[in-house]
Amino acid sequence: MGGDCRKVSRVLARVGDKWSVLIVMMLGGGPRRFNEIRRMVGGISQRMLTLTLRGLERDGLVTRTIYPTIPPRVEYNLTELGHSLRAPVQALGDWALAHTDTIEVAQRTFDARQD
Amino acid sequence: MGGDCRKVSRVLARVGDKWSVLIVMMLGGGPRRFNEIRRMVGGISQRMLTLTLRGLERDGLVTRTIYPTIPPRVEYNLTELGHSLRAPVQALGDWALAHTDTIEVAQRTFDARQD
Repeated sequence: MGGDCRKVSRVLARVGDKWSVLIVMMLGGGPRRFNEIRRMVGGISQRMLTLTLRGLERDGLVTRTIYPTIPPRVEYNLTELGHSLRAPVQALGDWALAHTDTIEVAQRTFDARQD
Repeated sequence: MGGDCRKVSRVLARVGDKWSVLIVMMLGGGPRRFNEIRRMVGGISQRMLTLTLRGLERDGLVTRTIYPTIPPRVEYNLTELGHSLRAPVQALGDWALAHTDTIEVAQRTFDARQD
């Protein structure tokens, strides 16, 4: 899986990225505006959200639509490819949510062993 | 999902990390030694593999066993928690493998639009 590994790892670097995962989960509910996404994904900076959305757009996972209203309205939406990513991403998010506490206990035990 | 979002995003930062995903996929086949993992996961540096394995161990996903042979033999293995992560991680890895080419086409189209 060597050659594949490098190819997969480049894609995983995007889709496995924590902010990408959270944004794909949020957009699963339908198109959203920048500030809506920022409110829903707690803790992400304006710059990181801009970069992550741009990366998702570049990878063909998200579309960016500008409506000619005054002021112009910008909406982000999942593409078909983006929607196909929802299932594995949701599974990873659900796993994370279900095991957060178990992991925090493991971390405290590990850290205590280091002292 | 605000509060949960921060908790989930900390865990996702680990489990969604591309190296962690690849290592969990590799260890799914059974215990491995450091250099075996390094050969199987193309492109990872010694330092990054050490840090990622330590992070996975700290999160309770991987065990590190030292056998008192001469020289000592060190093996890494998935814990029960680690094995429970395999399904979502494998699904993400499979998705990445299946869509790598589609994403590369989208990237070239996006980049051409920027020129």
